[in-house]
Amino acid sequence: MSVQSLEIFLKEKKEVIDKQLPLYIEKMKAPTSLKEAMLYSVYAGGKRLRPILLLAAMQAFRKDDEAGLPVACAVEMVHTYSLIHDDLPCMDDDDLRRGKPTNHKMFGEAMAVLAGDALLTNSFGIIANINHPFVTSEMKVELIKGLSDAAGAEGMVGGQVADMEGEEKNLQLQELEYIHQHKTGNMIRYSVIAGAVLAQATKEQLQHLEVFADHLGLAFQIQDDILDIEGDEAVIGKPVGSDENNQKSTYPKLLTLDGAKKKLNYHIAAAKEALLKTGIDTTRLEEITNYMVTRNH
Amino acid sequence: MSVQSLEIFLKEKKEVIDKQLPLYIEKMKAPTSLKEAMLYSVYAGGKRLRPILLLAAMQAFRKDDEAGLPVACAVEMVHTYSLIHDDLPCMDDDDLRRGKPTNHKMFGEAMAVLAGDALLTNSFGIIANINHPFVTSEMKVELIKGLSDAAGAEGMVGGQVADMEGEEKNLQLQELEYIHQHKTGNMIRYSVIAGAVLAQATKEQLQHLEVFADHLGLAFQIQDDILDIEGDEAVIGKPVGSDENNQKSTYPKLLTLDGAKKKLNYHIAAAKEALLKTGIDTTRLEEITNYMVTRNH
Repeated sequence: MSVQSLEIFLKEKKEVIDKQLPLYIEKMKAPTSLKEAMLYSVYAGGKRLRPILLLAAMQAFRKDDEAGLPVACAVEMVHTYSLIHDDLPCMDDDDLRRGKPTNHKMFGEAMAVLAGDALLTNSFGIIANINHPFVTSEMKVELIKGLSDAAGAEGMVGGQVADMEGEEKNLQLQELEYIHQHKTGNMIRYSVIAGAVLAQATKEQLQHLEVFADHLGLAFQIQDDILDIEGDEAVIGKPVGSDENNQKSTYPKLLTLDGAKKKLNYHIAAAKEALLKTGIDTTRLEEITNYMVTRNH
Repeated sequence: MSVQSLEIFLKEKKEVIDKQLPLYIEKMKAPTSLKEAMLYSVYAGGKRLRPILLLAAMQAFRKDDEAGLPVACAVEMVHTYSLIHDDLPCMDDDDLRRGKPTNHKMFGEAMAVLAGDALLTNSFGIIANINHPFVTSEMKVELIKGLSDAAGAEGMVGGQVADMEGEEKNLQLQELEYIHQHKTGNMIRYSVIAGAVLAQATKEQLQHLEVFADHLGLAFQIQDDILDIEGDEAVIGKPVGSDENNQKSTYPKLLTLDGAKKKLNYHIAAAKEALLKTGIDTTRLEEITNYMVTRNH
């Protein structure tokens, strides 16, 4: 049982990530301009939810999370690359992210493409380079395979393509879930599983944690859609109802607002049920689940 | 000593790569449109020089090259991704590659970005997934680390940034070499070294092969610049003298044509000298060197 409050845990872990992440880039022997562009988006980071999930998963196994830090940073680098490429004019064409100019607005499109490419490429090297007594080569291979699956054609990139192609369509619930599971869900699942792999979880524990993370990922997205309708514009930072205006398929649109809330509660309950089956100290992961699905921004 | 002619060797290995490479993509559970875009550029492949170098390096150690095939395909996927992103409107803005419409001309810019991203991401997974009795986890980790270094900010992406920034400048020889060593040289070196790692080369052999591959990479680029001046327009497929017209810094421009030829010969000789020191059967690698630096297209 953890005595540290969730708030302090989140703050501390975020600080650890915020401190470590730029170090990988700063020490690279690469053109200054490229490093600047990479660092810009890495510094512009948000809540660092994925790396925090990874570190929380390790702690649930009562493992010191030091060995998880490189993988946590790699996950955040992959997340950052995906945001840079998503913001490009040929993709979502966004000028602002978290209130700051997007990467291509700052450094030009060519540099934004390349900064994203480098963040993605080097994230694999960071995992391969882990130098820690209990991280074996077998673990590294498993972690790299998992990251490639979660981020590649069968994961995040596939979800992004499906999202792009579904933009102007009225999606079925199944299609909407495919998009969310792949575009955001797979990297959330990877974060949890990577922590568990590092903590030498059993095969059975890994299966329960996969179920947990998949429900968490969907709950997170449904909450996002509900927030878009109910949220306070000033708090979430984008016009409330923007999804509705741009014809985007959402859970409330497909299920009604009440139906979406029921589905949200179903996924939260299923996530927690799966957690219970792992036999580990899941207090923190439960707290993070509550935090992620009741956030107001 | 090999009895098979170089011509037949190159043809056979190219066929093996051409056959295996698409299989990795075809079996992916990913949106059809994404797979189509990935396959389009993978099928539009050229001479497959990098994977062939890898397989030739393995053969030099008298190793069956079957275990090298996944890594050879991963190398070609990374090469293919780099061409797709290089051709984008925000980069070189090319409409044609090898006489066919570039990826973004066929599938749109967003899909081209994503197809490149997926090829890059999944190449690491292909190495992590190798299932072959003599490929250990330690080897896989070394191969993945090497690929990340060769392709990332300290390698190919860094070279691409330097090239972009050097376009309108009169470069010093040192700057020109930095660009070539990183933009193309590091992946050529990686191809040779990956084959040697799979063949369990000694540390000393790896060092000699690095020297070999670095000289080969530079010779390859110098030959490219010389071809641009002396080549037959119909054979090389782009207007002769195009480098000169677009202000690009080249070896002949910095060293005179005669000076560039002397430098070419220096690198060829140094490459072969390094090969001799490895104590392996380097016949084929020497033949490939001759082929790469005397090609007329």
